[in-house]
Amino acid sequence: MKFDIKSVDSGMKSDLEHKIGFKTKPIGSLGRLEQLAIQIGLIQQSLCPKLTNPHVLVFAGDHGIATEGVSAYPQEVTFQMVENFLGGGAAINAFSRQNGMTIKIIDAGVNHDFEFSENIVNHKIRKGTSSSLAGTAMTIAELDQCLEYGKKIVDEISSTGSNVMGFGEMGIGNTSAASLIMSHLCQLDIEQCVGRGTGIDNDQLHKKTSILQRVLNHHASDLSPLEVLQTFGGFEIAQMCGAMLRAAELQRTLLIDGFIVTSAFLVAHAIHPEIKDYVVSCHKSGESGHEKMLNYLNIQPLLDLKMRLGEGTGCAGAYPILKSAVAFINEMASFDEAGVSNK
Amino acid sequence: MKFDIKSVDSGMKSDLEHKIGFKTKPIGSLGRLEQLAIQIGLIQQSLCPKLTNPHVLVFAGDHGIATEGVSAYPQEVTFQMVENFLGGGAAINAFSRQNGMTIKIIDAGVNHDFEFSENIVNHKIRKGTSSSLAGTAMTIAELDQCLEYGKKIVDEISSTGSNVMGFGEMGIGNTSAASLIMSHLCQLDIEQCVGRGTGIDNDQLHKKTSILQRVLNHHASDLSPLEVLQTFGGFEIAQMCGAMLRAAELQRTLLIDGFIVTSAFLVAHAIHPEIKDYVVSCHKSGESGHEKMLNYLNIQPLLDLKMRLGEGTGCAGAYPILKSAVAFINEMASFDEAGVSNK
Repeated sequence: MKFDIKSVDSGMKSDLEHKIGFKTKPIGSLGRLEQLAIQIGLIQQSLCPKLTNPHVLVFAGDHGIATEGVSAYPQEVTFQMVENFLGGGAAINAFSRQNGMTIKIIDAGVNHDFEFSENIVNHKIRKGTSSSLAGTAMTIAELDQCLEYGKKIVDEISSTGSNVMGFGEMGIGNTSAASLIMSHLCQLDIEQCVGRGTGIDNDQLHKKTSILQRVLNHHASDLSPLEVLQTFGGFEIAQMCGAMLRAAELQRTLLIDGFIVTSAFLVAHAIHPEIKDYVVSCHKSGESGHEKMLNYLNIQPLLDLKMRLGEGTGCAGAYPILKSAVAFINEMASFDEAGVSNK
Repeated sequence: MKFDIKSVDSGMKSDLEHKIGFKTKPIGSLGRLEQLAIQIGLIQQSLCPKLTNPHVLVFAGDHGIATEGVSAYPQEVTFQMVENFLGGGAAINAFSRQNGMTIKIIDAGVNHDFEFSENIVNHKIRKGTSSSLAGTAMTIAELDQCLEYGKKIVDEISSTGSNVMGFGEMGIGNTSAASLIMSHLCQLDIEQCVGRGTGIDNDQLHKKTSILQRVLNHHASDLSPLEVLQTFGGFEIAQMCGAMLRAAELQRTLLIDGFIVTSAFLVAHAIHPEIKDYVVSCHKSGESGHEKMLNYLNIQPLLDLKMRLGEGTGCAGAYPILKSAVAFINEMASFDEAGVSNK
């Protein structure tokens, strides 16, 4: 599957800086908001960027590795939380409602038979990946299907006029998959990549680390980015990766959440480094490996609120900051317009 | 002027923690949002806290010290920016509109004759403080009037049902007043308290520091908190201090902005340390002394976006985070309600 992702055309940067420089405020005094306004302006190639029909795409999937005892919660929590999303009772529901974002739930491979409705997209590959302790999490054909599905959901949402989309996930066991992806792509020991996920204790952390080391030992150490995705999974991470690549190809603004979403972005970035131009890192997760991922990517997150919930909650929580960036560049008066003396 | 500020009754804390603990998420996974929900719940003594009729109070005043050449901008910018607020073209207008906050502009002592309307409150003491290089910035009677005016505006806004209010300011020269207040109350050398304000260069920074050192030399080093306010000014800082004390007395949630607003809070806190229970520090300013103020107060800010604009822009920018905290505690389902397996 090919994606044609171009770096943003930065020819307009000086015009954006000029426009911001004459707003009624000291030069540079809106800090990160100014950088955001320039980034979104360049993505949209506009001096008056707009954020339209914002979405949060929540990809859910189950993991073969979860049966090895790497998580604090049983696997059934994946489907139960999906039902909770559909019922409107999860954190991502509350934050999306607050900030006017539409949630789309994608069943990428949950171990459950849902009654599908317009609120949940049936992109199920199968009922959970295989354990990467035995073989690869998915087949090459399944990986291709994941990327195809990711592209499809972004095409559908883009056709509604959405130009900004956040990525979220749900999947018991998926911090394990994300840690394996991170270890391989960032070339870091597994100990540096493993964290407490949903809240395991020291003994469980030791066990999780040792299982994941065994997984790494079982596979080659020089996998390509797509082989990494195929080998470690999961279906929700692979579909997110395809969705991110397509969203960047369509020049949308991408909101990256925490540890697991960033692991999907690590793969997308390894294939197409240009994707970084389209990405806003929304928050630094409390999951211990996330900061190292961000350092590896050399990306500064917007928020640091010690959140580690997933679901895209960091994206929804940070979205008002993007709105502020767009609001000031569009709405603020210039020194001339307001009759304010400049320096 | 007396304020009767009580520490919040923390008897309800375990009930709030219990409610949050059964929400459908891993324990503690909403990080700072959980602390915020508990704080606002305790302020309001409610398991279902609400944020109603949010306001940003922007206090404006001029400073005698500004005529000594401490700022990058001429003094007329104070009144011009007030006109800009009234015209809706400043950053605080854009952010308040975005987040559904009502702005109230208070002329605490601007060197200009405004046409007063319902959007600008006439609490002018006089057209700018005296220079603290020669004597005190204001008289005792003027300080009392400032505190009285601060109380009055909070009473008026509270009577509309507002239970959350942010504080902002405008006043060319007021980083100098704030630096002097900080140096005295935090017992730090003036070099550690002085920054670039609206954007002075190295030579101007050197000059500003040297002028402020002369001010400190001119006054006693053991002033009471109210004497600090009277000595260094300004009218907008003193009125903010009175407003903060009254807002805490009325058990409202107070949003603290950057360097200058925090200097007003330093005084309020020195008089009534209990006020801290009611306060949310909204952001860490790019103005260099602000982080040290926050360290002195042992308060963690919500945002760190390198903003240094004032006007209450940090409060308006962070307000959605408070809304998220209140949203999750009120709207999220519990494990039982959602039928999700707990650990």
